[in-house]
Amino acid sequence: MVPRLTLDALNAATTAEFVAALEDLFEHTPWVPEAAAAQRPFATVAALHAALMRPVLALPPEGRKALLNRFPDLAGKAARGGTMGAASVSEHAGLGLDRLSEAEFATFERLNAAYRDRFGFPFMICVRRQTRDAVLAAFERRLRHDEATELAAALAELGFITRLRLVERVDGPGAPATAGRLSTHVLDTLRGRGAAGLRVELFEVGGSARARLAEAVTNAEGRTDAPLLGGAPLRVGRYELVFHLGAYYAAAGVALPRQPFLDEVPIRFGIDEPEGHYHVPLVASPWTYTTYRGS
Amino acid sequence: MVPRLTLDALNAATTAEFVAALEDLFEHTPWVPEAAAAQRPFATVAALHAALMRPVLALPPEGRKALLNRFPDLAGKAARGGTMGAASVSEHAGLGLDRLSEAEFATFERLNAAYRDRFGFPFMICVRRQTRDAVLAAFERRLRHDEATELAAALAELGFITRLRLVERVDGPGAPATAGRLSTHVLDTLRGRGAAGLRVELFEVGGSARARLAEAVTNAEGRTDAPLLGGAPLRVGRYELVFHLGAYYAAAGVALPRQPFLDEVPIRFGIDEPEGHYHVPLVASPWTYTTYRGS
Amino acid sequence: MVPRLTLDALNAATTAEFVAALEDLFEHTPWVPEAAAAQRPFATVAALHAALMRPVLALPPEGRKALLNRFPDLAGKAARGGTMGAASVSEHAGLGLDRLSEAEFATFERLNAAYRDRFGFPFMICVRRQTRDAVLAAFERRLRHDEATELAAALAELGFITRLRLVERVDGPGAPATAGRLSTHVLDTLRGRGAAGLRVELFEVGGSARARLAEAVTNAEGRTDAPLLGGAPLRVGRYELVFHLGAYYAAAGVALPRQPFLDEVPIRFGIDEPEGHYHVPLVASPWTYTTYRGS
Amino acid sequence: MVPRLTLDALNAATTAEFVAALEDLFEHTPWVPEAAAAQRPFATVAALHAALMRPVLALPPEGRKALLNRFPDLAGKAARGGTMGAASVSEHAGLGLDRLSEAEFATFERLNAAYRDRFGFPFMICVRRQTRDAVLAAFERRLRHDEATELAAALAELGFITRLRLVERVDGPGAPATAGRLSTHVLDTLRGRGAAGLRVELFEVGGSARARLAEAVTNAEGRTDAPLLGGAPLRVGRYELVFHLGAYYAAAGVALPRQPFLDEVPIRFGIDEPEGHYHVPLVASPWTYTTYRGS
Repeated sequence: MVPRLTLDALNAATTAEFVAALEDLFEHTPWVPEAAAAQRPFATVAALHAALMRPVLALPPEGRKALLNRFPDLAGKAARGGTMGAASVSEHAGLGLDRLSEAEFATFERLNAAYRDRFGFPFMICVRRQTRDAVLAAFERRLRHDEATELAAALAELGFITRLRLVERVDGPGAPATAGRLSTHVLDTLRGRGAAGLRVELFEVGGSARARLAEAVTNAEGRTDAPLLGGAPLRVGRYELVFHLGAYYAAAGVALPRQPFLDEVPIRFGIDEPEGHYHVPLVASPWTYTTYRGS
Repeated sequence: MVPRLTLDALNAATTAEFVAALEDLFEHTPWVPEAAAAQRPFATVAALHAALMRPVLALPPEGRKALLNRFPDLAGKAARGGTMGAASVSEHAGLGLDRLSEAEFATFERLNAAYRDRFGFPFMICVRRQTRDAVLAAFERRLRHDEATELAAALAELGFITRLRLVERVDGPGAPATAGRLSTHVLDTLRGRGAAGLRVELFEVGGSARARLAEAVTNAEGRTDAPLLGGAPLRVGRYELVFHLGAYYAAAGVALPRQPFLDEVPIRFGIDEPEGHYHVPLVASPWTYTTYRGS
Repeated sequence: MVPRLTLDALNAATTAEFVAALEDLFEHTPWVPEAAAAQRPFATVAALHAALMRPVLALPPEGRKALLNRFPDLAGKAARGGTMGAASVSEHAGLGLDRLSEAEFATFERLNAAYRDRFGFPFMICVRRQTRDAVLAAFERRLRHDEATELAAALAELGFITRLRLVERVDGPGAPATAGRLSTHVLDTLRGRGAAGLRVELFEVGGSARARLAEAVTNAEGRTDAPLLGGAPLRVGRYELVFHLGAYYAAAGVALPRQPFLDEVPIRFGIDEPEGHYHVPLVASPWTYTTYRGS
Repeated sequence: MVPRLTLDALNAATTAEFVAALEDLFEHTPWVPEAAAAQRPFATVAALHAALMRPVLALPPEGRKALLNRFPDLAGKAARGGTMGAASVSEHAGLGLDRLSEAEFATFERLNAAYRDRFGFPFMICVRRQTRDAVLAAFERRLRHDEATELAAALAELGFITRLRLVERVDGPGAPATAGRLSTHVLDTLRGRGAAGLRVELFEVGGSARARLAEAVTNAEGRTDAPLLGGAPLRVGRYELVFHLGAYYAAAGVALPRQPFLDEVPIRFGIDEPEGHYHVPLVASPWTYTTYRGS
């Protein structure tokens, strides 16, 4: 585990120390932090990130490709063979890309090969902002890009990757926003107040599987004490909230049909903005409900 | 297949003809129609059914049990062995009780035995008003009844069974309502009109399985041309409507996020009144929806 | 009162009879029906109307103006002096243009004069499709038109006026749709069914006044037995439905705060399509409601 | 203006100082604070208030009446004649009871006289928790009470009055909650986010008049920067929020009918809990809206 640094320390460091501290953000490319070092001091972490990206964005196409080629294939042999950088290792693990079945590994191998064949560099994607389904959909979609479009897409992803790595490495003011948030709120319209004690579950709804991500019980206000997701980018993908409305009204002594009209209420929704706030409330009686993307 | 009769013909028939025509409603119990024959003429089919039930409801407990014992076990050996009455055969088939796996057959055998042990007569339930899950839930629930409560429950089911059989046998005015209805309606609140061309699917959501029951595309008004379910009792159970809202708005050229907030919208609901009208509309934009039990 | 004719009779009439029967539709302009007479027989009333409009739409600008000049000023001296055609008299009366205060009369005189000055013909508007506020707003808006735009607008109104006059004069198949409809429906989401016995009032919400147009009590389904408005064009304007929700829930024995959260629920809405169907439902509990333009 | 005190200072004061500081809370009744003084120190302002009320609640009926008789008639001659205590003067002014028309003054005189005749003490009500309509409704309702019920009601109001006076007089921990809050939030369901820049007006909807209490424009989140009402008890009464939805969508460039379906959206609601939080959101597109009591 690399120790956290402060922006002040980086501003005060020698160029050699500065480069040593940051070269692994770009998979051990010392010239990137070297080019940024001269622009110190940085007032904010966001300004430091912009300074690191500037020489990269100024590269001609061949230089960009060379830099991208320093990164490992997604879920590729490097991941399996243990030759990948530490940051990449941890990022892969979050999505379970280190635990693929043989068939899934083969799918990634096929897509990686097709992509490399087409563009001459590995597929870049900030996996911490994606569900596995979204990674696969992006792979298919971006394989149809022309080279200029795809180089731009790859550099945008490089920006997301290094921004996250930087925020975790360096403490200081003005960190770029990298965390999203998913929250909910249940209103009981039978009684005109927040629904307290109602169980809520959150699932990721993947193409092939369904994983429970969180469970909470609403507090006296009808909210959950903590956001259902937060503190990190939300992963682009499909989700489902399940509100245990029938059990809530039964516990409140409300007379319901033996087979209640509403019981477990599923709200299926997509997340498209990893750094966004998704507020997905439920306004419900035993016979109706409304949901919406709130804020 | 027994030919349909008319109420007029039954009113004009000899007692012997009347008994012959109706005795199989109660699994070949001639004294039931015999007792009713003297009360002719009947103005409505409902009055005829009431007259048939009257002598049954007047029986002392032992007489009720004897009558109930004429009926086969639910999904039992008679069903497998081919010794069941024609009406019972067809009713069993509708719920798939004639196609049970070995494990399911064993479950029914166990419940039938426990029920007979406890009450001394076979479990009566109008299977055409139930999903398989609801039948099993009713079995468990009614096994906890005391005898008097359960005899009343069994006779109520006998009434539902024979009412349905009678309505299918006899044409005439004043038939009792035996059909329920499930309908929907989709309102596009982005444009303030019915959503035309939106695909809707209906599933039964069972404890162990999910079966698609119907599929429809909304018409110019945002309704389906025919009810999703109708013309027969609705089966008590859990259902899910899936509205293909994302595809609808995408086809309309509405700009949506790559991962739309709302795409396939599931509405899960219970049906508790087999002869009721369940209107389950969706009032939706790409960012919100409301549903309710309408009428 | 002019007697109603049939399309068959008009198709069989002599040209002179045909002209005599229809010349007052265009304020006693015999050449309009004369030009249409030769195209008989007409299969539908709509085809007859189209044939009557064809020679009018073929006129050069000066001819159009001459025809328009046969019509009286809106709420003008002819209306007061009793020199207006019978159809115009009745149309004026419907909007209360025959009962203007002195100040209102002066406003119309001013607008009529400004309009005539600008365009050289009187302001045409199908008053039966408008509230008084909408007429005044149209006056102001159309005074800013250039001549070509306004001539087109005036002829469109002439079409609306004569279409209505024709539909009332002639019975026959294929009458053009001239009636709109306003309906409502109240859903009780406390109990999951239509709200029966709930009082609803409909108001026109004018710039300077508020007039009650209709009152109804919902039936067992939560609907009103008849549409709140119908059988004629809806008048473009602003309206308000007031639902007596507090009284409804109080009568149902629902415990409400002494000062109920929801009591008289106003829904204010605009009508823009005189021949459209406006369905404006209320889906409500004592603590929430939803409304929408339905169909 | 009486200077504010601290709970610490009151705990440390001599009995005479303590009595002098608080005797006017009960319209110059020194024995009330005297009885409470011995129970010092008080940990919270709420505990101090409870200690002040204790001797009052222990009085026999005649003692209660004598105490109540120290208070002036509501909107009565004392108010006009300038002989009322300073706290009462300020409380009266808040509701406009010092600016009544002759007819209104006569109504209050009539009600005061009827009440005194019936109960032998003046009508007590914490006017800062009431609209004028609510005061009049309470007057009529409480005139029908029996004496025991009404004495209890009068003492409850005395508690509300003195609690408010105490909270304004004394700084310290544990002040009882005396402030309510009214807030709103507008969600734009056409675009799935808070509606920014939407004008909202708040009116009190009285029996005879309509007064605008507040106006605000929503911020980037769709909320108002400050609550619409807050920092004091909410007044029991009827209110109306008017949301300028048509102008909002027009400014956003959304194509609307010339006469928009939704333009100024009124939400009429009652406030019954002066210390409660009323959150009244609007979830709206140009064709639908939902509101509810939130939290």
